[in-house]
Amino acid sequence: MPETVRITMEHGSGGQATGELIGEIFAPAFRNEVLGQMEDSAVVSGSGRIAVTTDSFVVTPLVFRGGDIGRLCVCGTVNDLLMRGAVPRYLTCGFILEEGLEIELLRRIVRSLAETAAEAGVQIIAGDTKVIEGNGGLIINTTGVGSVPDGLDISAGNAGEGDAVLVSGTMGDHHAAILGERLQIESDIESDCAPLGEIVKGLLDGGIRVRTLRDVTRGGLGTVLKELAEASGKCFIIEEDAVPVSARVRDFCGLLGLDPLYMGNEGKLVAVVPREQAAEALEIMKNARYGSGAAVIGKVAGAGEGTEAGELLMRTQIGGVRRLTVLQGEGLPRIC
Amino acid sequence: MPETVRITMEHGSGGQATGELIGEIFAPAFRNEVLGQMEDSAVVSGSGRIAVTTDSFVVTPLVFRGGDIGRLCVCGTVNDLLMRGAVPRYLTCGFILEEGLEIELLRRIVRSLAETAAEAGVQIIAGDTKVIEGNGGLIINTTGVGSVPDGLDISAGNAGEGDAVLVSGTMGDHHAAILGERLQIESDIESDCAPLGEIVKGLLDGGIRVRTLRDVTRGGLGTVLKELAEASGKCFIIEEDAVPVSARVRDFCGLLGLDPLYMGNEGKLVAVVPREQAAEALEIMKNARYGSGAAVIGKVAGAGEGTEAGELLMRTQIGGVRRLTVLQGEGLPRIC
Repeated sequence: MPETVRITMEHGSGGQATGELIGEIFAPAFRNEVLGQMEDSAVVSGSGRIAVTTDSFVVTPLVFRGGDIGRLCVCGTVNDLLMRGAVPRYLTCGFILEEGLEIELLRRIVRSLAETAAEAGVQIIAGDTKVIEGNGGLIINTTGVGSVPDGLDISAGNAGEGDAVLVSGTMGDHHAAILGERLQIESDIESDCAPLGEIVKGLLDGGIRVRTLRDVTRGGLGTVLKELAEASGKCFIIEEDAVPVSARVRDFCGLLGLDPLYMGNEGKLVAVVPREQAAEALEIMKNARYGSGAAVIGKVAGAGEGTEAGELLMRTQIGGVRRLTVLQGEGLPRIC
Repeated sequence: MPETVRITMEHGSGGQATGELIGEIFAPAFRNEVLGQMEDSAVVSGSGRIAVTTDSFVVTPLVFRGGDIGRLCVCGTVNDLLMRGAVPRYLTCGFILEEGLEIELLRRIVRSLAETAAEAGVQIIAGDTKVIEGNGGLIINTTGVGSVPDGLDISAGNAGEGDAVLVSGTMGDHHAAILGERLQIESDIESDCAPLGEIVKGLLDGGIRVRTLRDVTRGGLGTVLKELAEASGKCFIIEEDAVPVSARVRDFCGLLGLDPLYMGNEGKLVAVVPREQAAEALEIMKNARYGSGAAVIGKVAGAGEGTEAGELLMRTQIGGVRRLTVLQGEGLPRIC
């Protein structure tokens, strides 16, 4: 008799096992043109173009340095809309409350959610509440709807040879903050969770011909860039030296043997832009809210550089070249 | 020191305690015009009008006679869109998987979800997967987007004096099916979970000037009609004799001391239509898929009938009048 195959925590990592689960079960069952694009947001035709995205938030602890699940769910959802160039407009919220959840804590989280929605310029237009057995936990699903300006095409597969690759700030902050809370490590590291509308608006209003935007969440920068390399069929080359990591997060990672390249953020994005606009894009990002730590971290390889399609290479600090892949294994569960 | 107030299962009943939770915490924090309407779907302006609704499904068991959580989540969400007269177009799915969930069971549920989406004519355009600790359970959030035809205004508050009140079929089937599974009572009762698009399309295409539509879910017919009475400021009067309940469900309720008026369905709706169109509307419903058991069950009281605004009255089989209110207490948790 074959052994029963079961879901493990690894299926929720955002890395390889998640990809397999989606590829084997959800994608075949739901196959359609829009879903097949596998973007952060779905861009759908209709009367005008709207972008729609959904995300469930299961983070523990519910409140952490730099944020809480309420702020987190708005940022995560709004950022997913922004990554398609959409203007975020509406959110829905599905609350799944565990029996025993403190009302005051819920109130605080809901307030934070509402404040973040106001900051991000979105309206919450529908909600749902369920209660389940448990130990006072809380899960929130947020679905976002945005409007996509005419003629805009920002997509995971659009990177072109020679393009510049930028990030909007330091890597790993959210992940390190959550892990620090869980391990009760004394630290000043705060989650970076933030809505990235000002950065994206700045780039688009500034005339930057943005190819690709992607927020760096579960799976970290390594996973995101590898996915962009595969989606575009290009090779991405980054410089280890150029990837911004705060001294605190670097120390934290050193202590625990973690790699900031595979640690999630909740307020950082990757942007791929034409090489000749890289300096201008960097300037815009640095001047925008939540973009002060922006940096150019690499490029999309040109023809004749001897690289392979879909590869992610990193030139290390000691001059070697490391070939990177998506996050393997489970990473840190319930980070978002 | 004041006692800490905590969430109880009652907050998820769909009845009074849920209403209080929404009224006290979510509504004030999210206050906006659209949310303030408290409809099954939010109708938002934009380029054209789109309807958006969200729902999380936490039913146990995951598979039950007549359906499963996959079919249920599509029906629940699509029906919420239909209740505003919207044409359902897109769904998002957020899967929250408990560690230990059998892959085969997930596959079966996802397939059922996809089949039901096809039946209902909606595309699943975005998804999300999380894994949490647990015992092999599954929660699904579905958010739906539909387009609202120009000039259509179907809303909870639109009932007018003298209007007829119809239901599309027998009450309590889903609730009884779930409860039967839980109590392991041998029974042939099947959940009625079904997408109601054909009924709604039939009414609208047939020229019925539909005032109000509402699917009869958590809280049951009593809760739904009381809410409609309050939203419209009218008095609803129903005839106990006229409310359709199958013989099996009636026996089941008799055995357990349950009231079918407060038992949830997942494939039934209430329609309020002009009195002079009641017979025509009934005929349309009876001829539509999932509407064969439709019935006229009452009316909206006219001026001078000595009734009070917001009341729900039922003329009983023995000739008395019972004043009904929304579901009190917790009902059956995790029914949907």
